[in-house]
Order: sequence, then structure tokens, then C-alpha cells
Amino acid sequence: MTDPTKMPTATAAAAAIAAGKLTALDLVETFLARVAEREPVVQAFAELDADGAREAARALDAAGHGGPLHGIPLGFKDIIATAGLATRYNSPIYADNVPQQDASVVALSRVAGGIVLGKTVTCEFANRAPGPTTNPHDKARTPGGSSSGSAAAVAAGMVPLALGTQTSGSVIRPASFCGVHGFKGSWGEISYAGTKLTSGTLDTIGIYARSLQDIALYRAVLTDTRPMNLQRGNVPAPRIGVYRTPFASQAGPGSFEALDAVANAASKAGALVADRSLPAHFGALNDAVRWISAWEGARSLAWEKSFHRDRISPDLRLGRIQDGEACTHEVYTANCRLAERCRLEFDAVFDDIDILLTLASPGEAPLGLKETGTAVFNAAFTALHVPCVTLPGHTGPNGMPIGVQVVGKRSTDHRLLEIAAWLEHVAL
Amino acid sequence: MTDPTKMPTATAAAAAIAAGKLTALDLVETFLARVAEREPVVQAFAELDADGAREAARALDAAGHGGPLHGIPLGFKDIIATAGLATRYNSPIYADNVPQQDASVVALSRVAGGIVLGKTVTCEFANRAPGPTTNPHDKARTPGGSSSGSAAAVAAGMVPLALGTQTSGSVIRPASFCGVHGFKGSWGEISYAGTKLTSGTLDTIGIYARSLQDIALYRAVLTDTRPMNLQRGNVPAPRIGVYRTPFASQAGPGSFEALDAVANAASKAGALVADRSLPAHFGALNDAVRWISAWEGARSLAWEKSFHRDRISPDLRLGRIQDGEACTHEVYTANCRLAERCRLEFDAVFDDIDILLTLASPGEAPLGLKETGTAVFNAAFTALHVPCVTLPGHTGPNGMPIGVQVVGKRSTDHRLLEIAAWLEHVAL
Repeated sequence: MTDPTKMPTATAAAAAIAAGKLTALDLVETFLARVAEREPVVQAFAELDADGAREAARALDAAGHGGPLHGIPLGFKDIIATAGLATRYNSPIYADNVPQQDASVVALSRVAGGIVLGKTVTCEFANRAPGPTTNPHDKARTPGGSSSGSAAAVAAGMVPLALGTQTSGSVIRPASFCGVHGFKGSWGEISYAGTKLTSGTLDTIGIYARSLQDIALYRAVLTDTRPMNLQRGNVPAPRIGVYRTPFASQAGPGSFEALDAVANAASKAGALVADRSLPAHFGALNDAVRWISAWEGARSLAWEKSFHRDRISPDLRLGRIQDGEACTHEVYTANCRLAERCRLEFDAVFDDIDILLTLASPGEAPLGLKETGTAVFNAAFTALHVPCVTLPGHTGPNGMPIGVQVVGKRSTDHRLLEIAAWLEHVAL
Repeated sequence: MTDPTKMPTATAAAAAIAAGKLTALDLVETFLARVAEREPVVQAFAELDADGAREAARALDAAGHGGPLHGIPLGFKDIIATAGLATRYNSPIYADNVPQQDASVVALSRVAGGIVLGKTVTCEFANRAPGPTTNPHDKARTPGGSSSGSAAAVAAGMVPLALGTQTSGSVIRPASFCGVHGFKGSWGEISYAGTKLTSGTLDTIGIYARSLQDIALYRAVLTDTRPMNLQRGNVPAPRIGVYRTPFASQAGPGSFEALDAVANAASKAGALVADRSLPAHFGALNDAVRWISAWEGARSLAWEKSFHRDRISPDLRLGRIQDGEACTHEVYTANCRLAERCRLEFDAVFDDIDILLTLASPGEAPLGLKETGTAVFNAAFTALHVPCVTLPGHTGPNGMPIGVQVVGKRSTDHRLLEIAAWLEHVAL
């Protein structure tokens, strides 16, 4: 796949800086120029910190080469706390909120030499009510949500890497709509400390990038583990289960074509490819995510809903909060148990296959900016706590991007990225 | 059990206020008088908000009777955010931290009519380095930790209810040492939003009170579920498994005596009582808690350890943080999987029994204020995500309190409290 943005990846830029061919300040200026060009239409940033980024770049240039993200400009979904930089959750309740501390993921990024270029637009409290961000491929279409700004900023080449979060489908789906790589890790591995919590059972940090190697690089930083290159060449042809889901009727034009194209190319390249279904009770996982996120979300937002209810959108008030207030303890706990049982069973699915290949979104990004699309092909995998990656590279009937989703076994995130790299090499 | 503090429980005080026999302001003044008397020695409060509490009480009195905690003064462990009131985590890094928002549990408390009397002393970031709090029964002894101030404040009668948190044994053990009721709920039910996160897999909110009915009352508020009275009388004599743990050699004088006394009394009252062991791999859960909390904790504290390392105590730097930096991803995930597997297996334990009865602490509170005791009898149950309650009422050879721990099946917290009430009625 050729990258339409022509902007350097994080890996390439970090290598150029390490080789003395580029300074961190050069890189920041390059991306700021791109922001100046694209942001008026894309509107991916809730807050841009050009001066802070330049200052950080100068300090890094003065200090000499350091961590694996040395000099790389980054975007953070605006539910992630950044010391000294506004963090508003796309809610008027937090219009004046400037944290004194970084979230865990921001601190780990800075320690690795990363530069906070800005905060990216989120749906209100990472729920549904969207911000102004447009899809970089068509300004009349949604970028997806709730990590709208992070997906769009990376797709528009305004940052090489950005962080999002997923409680239902908020990382994987926007990546498909925007034509970038999206990654949601195994639940729990990347700390949520300092990121606005709504559902402790589901909330997971995710990464946007324009290459899988960049995702692997950033994942190592965020998990504070040893950086590893993706050994695409050393991965044997994988065993692939193609999962067509019980919700195929909700898929739009182009989505199954993309899935079949990847599956066929993988088969030709030697992968063992076969359709794979899941036990019937897995079909209830989407509903489980709805009830778990509602029960926990309505309680997590207790302060906001109790003392600033009139400044919460109807989308949230009449959606997740009302659902959460209506949900009984019995329904909540039954759904938690279902999700847990399915997690254990899903581990065993990987006895026969290496990855599950499925839809990342219902198809192309829908027209309009008031809705961010459905998480119907994502929510179950959030409940399953498994690593997922969106591989871009296909287009639908309107020329808009469509990605496919690759799902791995829990706690084998790096291996999933390696297999995804193999798949991308042979199929995209 | 007679209550040595002679202070009203939350349930009694709320009833008196509802009946017009007492105002919220009267109640606040009563508890403030108790604070004036006991706090100089006990030092349970990191921050007392006497004026704020009086103001809230006047507003409640003016508004008329409202929620189930109407007028009840409350203490919050100082890792729980309180709008407008300092929240310092017992760390100099946060000396000036005043949140703009309440944590979920604080907002739910206020909506129910509860009054924030103050913040209670925590160990640094709810880890090990203790604050100045003394045991209300002997100022030369630790109250336990990390929820030191909440346990001590309730034990000294300075508040009827206080919140703590447990990542290893930080709620149940201090309750035993201080002679009060402690409750840790099923993981996930009470939102951690706005409470300082260290381990997403383990961190759980807990309640201190001087009666089980008070715990049931507050739990309903914090889970935003319908208040229920404890139907002690309607509970049939339970089936009790007495769990003597693989760590009996670490128990001090008085602990097994308390356990046996409760078990014998229950048996005499008609309960089916038998020793119960757990599969051998459950013995590794204490280590699992150590590694999971270390891996996640070192990452959750990324900002503090990276930018303020010199202001972190050696206890934390050379303990959990160093452990977490040394722990590999493989060790971390293997321990997460062990805990998950044990959770599922532990559910089945309750096919034969209604509750597990075990030690709440190694015995009496140790002498000295530099250590808060060991979580050896608690950590496994934190990993198991099960509801646990400390029942006070026994004393050791030095006349210090010793509680027993009652453990229930996941997601049946209210039922656990009902059975505990039966047990308390017949045995204490």
C-alpha cells in the first residue's frame, strides 16, 4: 500500500533523527506545516500545542538522541490527561480543565522522547456525541468515533502516531473509515491511569499509525517493554479463521469484498484459510457491551450527571446514562459473567488458528457528521479483551477506505502484529 | 458486640434525622466534637473540612429530608478525588493538588445526602509507606494500611462511614486491626473513576462502618442500586467452609482462636461447618497479586516515577516500582491468567457452601507505625474479585481487636452481608 500522505512514519523519522539527518525541530515543523494545510478542513485537534512542541523539540535536540520516540510528534485523544494542556473530554463541563499531571501513557511517551503536538477531538466522554472532525478522505463523511480526531489526524498525516480508546468500537472502526492502521491491545496491559474512566471492564487504550511497525514501536513504549521489530519474514504462513459474524446483514457494500480479497490473497500465499464461526452465545456479546458500558458508565459519570446534567448531550443522557440507570444489577452481572466465560472459551479458538480475520466496520464511512457509525463488528472483541488491528488498503464503491480487522489471542499482541504484517505483505 | 465509641451508626443517625429528632448540623457537630477529642492521638485525617461539612449540613437541613445518607458525615481515603478539597495521595508530589471534580463514589455519596467531613490518611499512593495514623486501641500500634485513616476514623467514632481501597489487603486487614467492619465488594461494581488508579486488575473500593447494616446502606448508594435492609432473620443457617489457608504459620496468637470461636458458635446455631481447602494453585495467588500490582502499578505511576522519582519513598521505589520494572510481560500475563482461571473455579466452590470463613489479618495489629502488616490472608481474595467482609468482635492476648473474614461468591455482595449478619448475630 502506498501512503497518500507522503509524510514520514515514526520509525522512519526516528531513524533519520538518530542518523543525524533530521532534527526533532525539523520534524515538528514538517508536521506543523501539514497541520496548517489540513486542519482547517479536517478539524482533528481539540487543542494544538505548537509552541510547546517546538520547545520540547529544541530540548530534545539539545539533549542528543534518547528514547525510541525521540522527536516524534504525537496526538492524544482528549480524554487523556496532559500536564499543562487543556483536557476537555469534548464536554462544556470541562472547558477550563488543565491537568497538572500526565496520564500514564503521556508520561511514557515523553520519557521515550515523544512530543505532545496536541489533543485530538473525542466524542463527548468517549461516548457518541461527536465533535467537528471530518473524514480526511471526504469532508462530508464521519471519521468514525469516539477517537475521531486521532484517526483523522493520522490519516491526514498531521501526526505519525496518535492514541485513542475503545469501549465498544472506538479505535478499530475509525481506522477503517479513515484508512489507517488502528490497534487495540489486550485489556489491562496499557495503563488507563489518568485517562477518563467510563467502563473499568471494557475501556482500553488504542494506537493509530500509518504502519504496523510504528504500532509495534509505540506499543513497546506504552507497555514499557523492550522494543521489538516486526519479524514479518520469520512468520510462517498463518492459519486464518474467517469470521463472517452473525451481523452480516448490517454490512454495507465493499466490506465483505475487502475481507474476501485479503483471505484469498493469504490463501494464495500459503495461509490455511477457512471460515470460522463462534458458539451462538458469542452473539450476545454486543448486547453485553451495551449493558456493561451503560451500568459502569452511568456510575463513572456520577459527578457530571448529578451536578451538570444540563450540560450533558441528549445523546449521552438518553443513551448510555439512561440505559445504565435502567439496567439492573442482575443484568449487569450476568453480562459480566457471559463476557468472562467467552474470554476463556475464545482462548481455545486459537488452538486451531493463529488469527481471526473479520470486518473492521460496516463498510465505508457514512455520510454526515452527526453519527460516527456502528460498533457492531467491534464490541464483542472489546468484551473479549483480545488484541485487534485494523489493516487498511481497500476501498468501497465511493472510493472511501475500508479496512479489515485481524484479531489475536489475548496477551499475544506483538505476535498478532507480526502476523498482520505478514498478511499485509502478501495481501495489501 | 457493644460499640465502645457510643457514637451513632449511619442507619440510626439517618433515622433520627428523618424523624425530625436530629438535624444534619447537630450530627456534624457531634462528630466534630469527637474528632476534636480523638484526632490529636489517632491522626486519621489528612484534611478535615469542618466548615464545608457545616455548610453542607445547613443546606441539607434547609432542603428537608432527602437521600439515604442525608446528613451523614463521611471520610474518604486520600486517593479519592474530592471537588475543592485537597487530595494528596500522601505524596509530596501532590501537596498542592485540589481536584475540580468529585470521584464517582464521592458524587454518589453527596447525591445521597452524605457530607464530606474530610480526607483520611492513606499510605503513599495506597501502597506501603504509611502516614502518621495510630491504632485507636493503642497508639503504639499500626491501624493497618493502606486505608489507615478510614479504618481508624471509623474505629475512633470520628465518622460512621468511610471509604478505602484494596489492591492487596488494604481494606480487610485494617478493619481487623482496628476492630471495625470492613467490606470489599466484587471487583468492578463500584466505579473507580476519579480514584487514583494503580492496578486496573485489582483496585477495588471498600467501606468501613460500625455495623453491617451501615455497609449495606452505603453499598446501595455506591452501586446506585435500591437500598435494602439486611434480612438477617430470613437467612437460613448457612453452609460454612472454614479455610485455614496455606499460610497458617504466619498467623499470630489469637487469630485461629477467633476463627474457631466463630465457627463453633455458628455450628451450635445450626450452620453446616466444615474445613475447606482450595486447590494447590490457589496458593500462588498471593504472588500473582504481587506481580500484577507491580507490573500495572509501575506503569500507572509513570508520570510520578519519571518526573518526580526523588519524591517517591524508598518503600515504593524499591518495592512495587522496582518489582514492576523487573517483571516481564510473560510473568505478568501468566499471573493474570492464573487469577482469571481461579476466579472461575472459585465460583464453583459456592455450589457446596454459602460462605468461606477465614482469617482477616495475621492477628493483632503489630507494634510500631512504620509497617502496616501483611496482606497474606487477603491478597488472594482481591485477585478472586469476590466480596469480603471483616467481622470484628474478638481480641488477642494484648486485648487488641482481631476480626474474622467472611468471603462470598462474586456478584452476591448483598447476600454475603446478610449471611454475615446471621453469623454476627449468633457468634459475636
